[in-house]
Amino acid sequence: MSVTAAKGFRAGGIAAGIKPDGQLDVALVMADRAVPAAAVFTRNGAPAAPVQVSRRHLGEDLGVRAVILNSGCANAGTGEPGLVAASETAKAVATEIGCLPEEVLVCSTGPIGDVLEVGLITGALPDLVGQTLASAAHGTAAATAILTTDTVPKEATFWGDGFVVGGMAKGAGMIRPDMATMLAVLTTDAAADRDTLQRILRRAVETTFNCLNVDGCESTNDTVILAASGEVGGVDPEALAEGVEAVCRDLARAIAADAEGATRVVTVRIRGAADDAAARLLGRAVADSALVRSSFYGPDPNWGRILAALGSARVPFDPEAVTVSYAGTVVARDGMTVPDLDVDAVVDAMAGDFTVDVVVGTGLGEAEILTTDLTPEYVTFNGGRS
Amino acid sequence: MSVTAAKGFRAGGIAAGIKPDGQLDVALVMADRAVPAAAVFTRNGAPAAPVQVSRRHLGEDLGVRAVILNSGCANAGTGEPGLVAASETAKAVATEIGCLPEEVLVCSTGPIGDVLEVGLITGALPDLVGQTLASAAHGTAAATAILTTDTVPKEATFWGDGFVVGGMAKGAGMIRPDMATMLAVLTTDAAADRDTLQRILRRAVETTFNCLNVDGCESTNDTVILAASGEVGGVDPEALAEGVEAVCRDLARAIAADAEGATRVVTVRIRGAADDAAARLLGRAVADSALVRSSFYGPDPNWGRILAALGSARVPFDPEAVTVSYAGTVVARDGMTVPDLDVDAVVDAMAGDFTVDVVVGTGLGEAEILTTDLTPEYVTFNGGRS
Repeated sequence: MSVTAAKGFRAGGIAAGIKPDGQLDVALVMADRAVPAAAVFTRNGAPAAPVQVSRRHLGEDLGVRAVILNSGCANAGTGEPGLVAASETAKAVATEIGCLPEEVLVCSTGPIGDVLEVGLITGALPDLVGQTLASAAHGTAAATAILTTDTVPKEATFWGDGFVVGGMAKGAGMIRPDMATMLAVLTTDAAADRDTLQRILRRAVETTFNCLNVDGCESTNDTVILAASGEVGGVDPEALAEGVEAVCRDLARAIAADAEGATRVVTVRIRGAADDAAARLLGRAVADSALVRSSFYGPDPNWGRILAALGSARVPFDPEAVTVSYAGTVVARDGMTVPDLDVDAVVDAMAGDFTVDVVVGTGLGEAEILTTDLTPEYVTFNGGRS
Repeated sequence: MSVTAAKGFRAGGIAAGIKPDGQLDVALVMADRAVPAAAVFTRNGAPAAPVQVSRRHLGEDLGVRAVILNSGCANAGTGEPGLVAASETAKAVATEIGCLPEEVLVCSTGPIGDVLEVGLITGALPDLVGQTLASAAHGTAAATAILTTDTVPKEATFWGDGFVVGGMAKGAGMIRPDMATMLAVLTTDAAADRDTLQRILRRAVETTFNCLNVDGCESTNDTVILAASGEVGGVDPEALAEGVEAVCRDLARAIAADAEGATRVVTVRIRGAADDAAARLLGRAVADSALVRSSFYGPDPNWGRILAALGSARVPFDPEAVTVSYAGTVVARDGMTVPDLDVDAVVDAMAGDFTVDVVVGTGLGEAEILTTDLTPEYVTFNGGRS
């Protein structure tokens, strides 16, 4: 179950011809009426046209009636024609379902540089709206229509006490995505105002999607949306926040597991930093190092690369306190290699997904970053012409 | 010619048994007397023991009589025993050649985590000093003894008006090096005081070694040293600066050309930024993107990845002004794909080393960053157990 798990939402997907071979490429998520919604957009300095249009529509504060999403074209690096195309898309949806254009958000993902062909979407809209329903299968159709290089649709659901949070996401490249934009739409039937939703979503994104090693190198199109139908009435905001974070976490893990060319998901856990923010920066430096991630591919418990990456983070830590464990085995303690280590046993334990535990001092700050190994397949894949 | 090109310097290399199979692994660069010297050290938060010791010795301001360098062991992540080993190394050299320990700088490179075996160096020192001479061959022996995964020694010389600047370097990994520490020693026979040398060296490093995509992720051991014998007397500081920068530039290019697994050197040229510093940050964001560098491997003139990388730099620029050329052909102008492009011709022009020109606005800031393609071989190489 995903975006249709919460009462008051419908979803659907259709093949509009943006992608070849009849693949699903346009998704619609609809609320029964305009509902409060929040969004976290990419901080990339060259935001795509749909990001600019969605940000403007959300700023009108009229609520959100629908989110239209397409794969096969990012509509980024497209200047004024791109902005017109994104606006026209929202207008066409508004006309078809009977709402204001400002109540429609637009998301696009795919290769950068081509303007979205609005005609393909408007031509498919009547059929798409007819196939936008509240079933799980229709949620999965929407989740499938937003995929690019992903191999599987990504859906998650949190069943709270009297409310539901559901979500879908796409995102395949692990670092510096472009075709591999991260998009996610979450829905809930709990009631919450826009400011509450915004606060909850921002916090959840910070500890989940932003703890994939994507942060600081966000794509032109990254967007996470949370809409609340209120069908089941008000709930404890902390309980709702927990549900939103759980769904974001599941989706983030699904994105990592489906990363291009990756053979394993690695959790980098930092403890002992000055505070959580410092821990996140240190963890991201580790998870963002091509040398560290190559050693995960080996696999090779090469803690020196972790030390070097920590040192590059420009965050104070104590090199003499650094203790590193791979898959539960300590390989370096207090900044020095553990003598007489059974390296072969550690390597064996790194065969599948594993966790690297890094202690950097005696502070209370901690963070968990998800990453994957960097593989020859990743480079071959991303070296191919798009 | 390298460090022995300038009058007043000798060099040598020997196999001390730190590396296997009788490979050269210890280098010595000596001045005939203690001379003014400057150094730029890594800003990594976990600096190796030799960096800490050399920084302290240089701080004593007694001048530099010798630099001892070893490969096969980084002596990093080694705590107090590592500091003792680095100090003992300097002391042994001082005793052997008759100077103060504080007149000796120490550099190490190789795997992180093992303490340097000082006995191997002290045992080899009498022979090494005997083989430390002013010839070009002895300079090359020193340049060879500092190599790790490099495939060729890296030497450069600048013949100025009445003075010489020579240098040697090692460094093989392109990004986030650890075993692939960047070390360089430059010598000149011009006269200059320590402060002048420091100013000249820092500026040269900023526009050369720091414009390899190594910056912001410096290794635990990175060190660049410049020593001036003064044998030919004073020269125009600007002329000396030009010579130092030329040698640094040649060495940086040699490092890029010898990068692990790389098949081509790519020059990323940024123009139109607010100032040079902004241009460097934008260029580094491009050169540091695994997706961009994978597309260099393709090769694939995928300018969308460049746009996304620029946007991730958190530096103001104008996406609508972005114009990107690969190997001289404009593929995107004013933020949009050039229509009817002969992509195959562009791909053909990207077969060897090439330049990517990126215009980001109408400012006067510009920068040139050297990088390489990211290849499956890089990952395979760095995934191997060290």
